[in-house]
Amino acid sequence: MTDNTTPQRTELSALGEFGLIDHLTSGIKIFHKSTLKGVGDDAAVIDNGDSVTLVSKDLLVEGVHFDLTYTPLRHLGYKAAVVNISDIVAMNGTATQMLVGISVSNRFSVEALDELYAGIRLACEKYKVDLVGGDTTSSVSGLFLSITVIGKVKKEDVVYRSTARENDLICVSGDLGGAYIGLLLLEREKQVYKANPQMQPELEGNDYVLERQLKPEARVDVLVKLREAGVKPTAMIDISDGLASEVLHLAKDSGLGCRIFEDKIPVDVVTADIAAEFQIDPTTAAMNGGEDYELLFTVDVNDFEKVKSIKDIHIIGHMLEKAEGEYLISNGGSMYPIEAQGFNHMRED
Amino acid sequence: MTDNTTPQRTELSALGEFGLIDHLTSGIKIFHKSTLKGVGDDAAVIDNGDSVTLVSKDLLVEGVHFDLTYTPLRHLGYKAAVVNISDIVAMNGTATQMLVGISVSNRFSVEALDELYAGIRLACEKYKVDLVGGDTTSSVSGLFLSITVIGKVKKEDVVYRSTARENDLICVSGDLGGAYIGLLLLEREKQVYKANPQMQPELEGNDYVLERQLKPEARVDVLVKLREAGVKPTAMIDISDGLASEVLHLAKDSGLGCRIFEDKIPVDVVTADIAAEFQIDPTTAAMNGGEDYELLFTVDVNDFEKVKSIKDIHIIGHMLEKAEGEYLISNGGSMYPIEAQGFNHMRED
Repeated sequence: MTDNTTPQRTELSALGEFGLIDHLTSGIKIFHKSTLKGVGDDAAVIDNGDSVTLVSKDLLVEGVHFDLTYTPLRHLGYKAAVVNISDIVAMNGTATQMLVGISVSNRFSVEALDELYAGIRLACEKYKVDLVGGDTTSSVSGLFLSITVIGKVKKEDVVYRSTARENDLICVSGDLGGAYIGLLLLEREKQVYKANPQMQPELEGNDYVLERQLKPEARVDVLVKLREAGVKPTAMIDISDGLASEVLHLAKDSGLGCRIFEDKIPVDVVTADIAAEFQIDPTTAAMNGGEDYELLFTVDVNDFEKVKSIKDIHIIGHMLEKAEGEYLISNGGSMYPIEAQGFNHMRED
Repeated sequence: MTDNTTPQRTELSALGEFGLIDHLTSGIKIFHKSTLKGVGDDAAVIDNGDSVTLVSKDLLVEGVHFDLTYTPLRHLGYKAAVVNISDIVAMNGTATQMLVGISVSNRFSVEALDELYAGIRLACEKYKVDLVGGDTTSSVSGLFLSITVIGKVKKEDVVYRSTARENDLICVSGDLGGAYIGLLLLEREKQVYKANPQMQPELEGNDYVLERQLKPEARVDVLVKLREAGVKPTAMIDISDGLASEVLHLAKDSGLGCRIFEDKIPVDVVTADIAAEFQIDPTTAAMNGGEDYELLFTVDVNDFEKVKSIKDIHIIGHMLEKAEGEYLISNGGSMYPIEAQGFNHMRED
């Protein structure tokens, strides 16, 4: 056996997740005028006359996106549904229909799938989403969830990632970092349990961060508040991969630079306390933790007063021209370039 | 450890695929008037005023739905796209957009994913479908494909499974059983190869059935011919699970019985020849083989002359009132109850 006929092999890790998606979807031909937005936002946007249809799709894979050791199936179903609904919310839309694909090995029972579906249904009832189809198949091993959610919004109300403008204010809802700290807690208890199965998990008093990790919500309420205040975001995205990654999406897709102020980043006191226990900077958890599913959006600077008065919305920075780059201004006044998953490395000083 | 606190465990196999889907989706609440059809047809149907949006979703799992030993990745991508497009065609619609979810282990290279995507893109170009989004994630092992396809059709043109009427003619496009015979051939060559890797596969002269298995097409052309002839099917479904299973869907969902005539079932001569080699009844291959992705539909009996003159459409039976049951009339004139995956067992006589 010689190797000289072997075709080139590039490892998936060489491109990274975003690089891989860019690579696979580059140069795609679009045939239909109704395709207003394809790859590259929280959801695809399809023209229907006065309104548009929004479609988003996510895969959740056992051992990659969730660990059934500490994720109850009902929570997993709920979260899988919510994560997708959040993508529609991030386009300023209303989720209306959902399709669920489940692939499971025979390690799972009908009762286990019932639990999973109970969580999905609970989310569908809470967010008034119709479960309209899907597919259930077997797998050789493991549990795979594939959710497609469909939403609606008036054409003039769609909010993209790429439409922020210079001097716009950068806002975030709720607080950040909690979901990541909750994950660390669950991972730690898993290790403790592995070492000694008689040990009871120490999860009491940590309900807030556990709920952030296990049972996130889509911020429909924030859209409602913004509408009531007469504010339309100029650009929007939901925080699935951490503030750093999402801010970079807004800035780069809009062709702009930005400043984020560390002291403005909202972190809950429980998150900060447990982060300290883990010797993790809460800002790191917020910037790179991910899975908070809060909304990150920009508004016109003239909407400052309106936005400031809305409870649970925090102004954390502003957009600048592209040449200014993307920086975090630390509590000490230093400037750190914002990098997706890069904040940890910056703390060497 | 005692077992008396163990919750009830029902094996997935106890319900079967259709039973499981029924079980999981029973009693689902529908909140939106725009949801014209949820679970239970080839695609969900969402109202948009004059037109409707059709959405269908399929999962394809390595080791369950495909075997990469003999399925080139490019063919797999093409087939995965076509199978979904076929679901939209089966609603009398036009596929317009597609979202692709891929989950792969690091056993796959970027070049392998490029091949898979090349197949998906080829199908999208052939059928003029816009690739508008998706998700690419890692898996612990294996390849999972999840495809969502979106389509469009005028509201008055949607064709459901459940709207066949008594005395309607049952028609099928193309020929049946080929995809299954192609699969048997590939499986046989895989066993030969396993036994002796030096052995060259004997696939020559069998191109037709191999193509039926590896590179099926969605019958958009049949919809065009029907429109040109001024015929609107009264009910329609695509043949993914075999003629028996699909005829039963049409009959049961429409609350009717039916007769299918064995001598009218179209089987290609290559399919019949290779079936004979495998000592398989070609009718069995057509009834239970599946994956032919031909269209099965009913038309008004007054459209008989119009349909009869369309090349590649075969009238194979008719609908009756429910009390008449669902039967296959054999070449010998005997009546056999039609059962999904049940035809083999009937041949004991």
